[in-house]
Amino acid sequence: MTAEPGVHTARPQDSRPALTADTRDTGVDAAVAAARRVIAALLAAGDAPGADLGRVASTLHEVADHLDEHAPPLKERLVTMWAGEGVTRHDPVTGPENAIAPPLVLRGKDDGSVTATTTLGLPYQGPPGYVHGGVSALLLDHTLGVANHWGGPSGMTAELTLRYHRPTPLFEPLTVTGRQTSVDGRKIRTVGAITAAGKVCVSAEGLFIAVQPERPR
Amino acid sequence: MTAEPGVHTARPQDSRPALTADTRDTGVDAAVAAARRVIAALLAAGDAPGADLGRVASTLHEVADHLDEHAPPLKERLVTMWAGEGVTRHDPVTGPENAIAPPLVLRGKDDGSVTATTTLGLPYQGPPGYVHGGVSALLLDHTLGVANHWGGPSGMTAELTLRYHRPTPLFEPLTVTGRQTSVDGRKIRTVGAITAAGKVCVSAEGLFIAVQPERPR
Repeated sequence: MTAEPGVHTARPQDSRPALTADTRDTGVDAAVAAARRVIAALLAAGDAPGADLGRVASTLHEVADHLDEHAPPLKERLVTMWAGEGVTRHDPVTGPENAIAPPLVLRGKDDGSVTATTTLGLPYQGPPGYVHGGVSALLLDHTLGVANHWGGPSGMTAELTLRYHRPTPLFEPLTVTGRQTSVDGRKIRTVGAITAAGKVCVSAEGLFIAVQPERPR
Repeated sequence: MTAEPGVHTARPQDSRPALTADTRDTGVDAAVAAARRVIAALLAAGDAPGADLGRVASTLHEVADHLDEHAPPLKERLVTMWAGEGVTRHDPVTGPENAIAPPLVLRGKDDGSVTATTTLGLPYQGPPGYVHGGVSALLLDHTLGVANHWGGPSGMTAELTLRYHRPTPLFEPLTVTGRQTSVDGRKIRTVGAITAAGKVCVSAEGLFIAVQPERPR
């Protein structure tokens, strides 16, 4: 077993520590930010007349080919991506190197909870104009995990229950929160919610077991 | 209220109907397939020496600019994307037009269940070398919804419980299944699971309420 993965706790100007990696405006982070624009633009355009989608496809393949040419062997990459601060850079919720992530920037509060605000667009759509219920589950699962890192012992998800109170709107600011509520031996209980305009859209309850996954080396 | 959204049920050669949209090898689908390669390649490369990430970023911004230039107004796009067969083309689980989606290709079986196989890579990583628990929740929420479309009345997720039995491996074939178990008035109950090499990694139970979201027009 390795030590508990560290989280990035540099204090930003607002004095509440960011528990997620900072997005840099250069290197792979900047390329990933551009890739997020492409994902959203493809959904916004669809098969729009005038868009040269054949050229778009070939340009994107060229970009992928260039990156693949310079990528280290996967086994080696899995070691470096899980070393040091890398731990929060690749996940599909907060990772600045993962174009699937909105990304969520979670901050720890003095009361032991964590919070983030985000606005989601077309890539995260479920029902027309609303966030996919499974995307809400994805954001909350991760937020509860980070709340454990911030508020007390952390572990692996054993059980997660989501309750959908009202549809979660796209294109409007959402607040995502998490808070550890109890620790009983290795059993950790954590709750969270997604709210829009002060109303709870989705709430979550998680049971986590205090074991740490082994890191590749 | 509109009619229940139709799902694509063209019978492929294996005689079990695909409940998700077919991926075309031209137009926006082909561009989205290339975008998926870019997402994965960015994670595989990271800040790899020799990769010209500045050029990658500017190329991707040019692609996004080109698409944005030709995209219809969002309000209009929301109407067309929810018309006819479009209903299954944009979601973040099965959508051939959504680069976030693996995409899952779900097929309906004669016993009323639905099933898909998929292999997930770095964009879906949670613990080192394993699928993110929230990604499993995303896939299962959607699969349970499609199982409702296939097996009986369908509706909106009210409650979803995920149980994590063992870590779900990346880079190995996964089977995702869903099956409606009961309908009691407007209450629909549905179960599902993700298995790897025949062993259940994650199981899900959902309660759905038989209401249909309104489609934009």
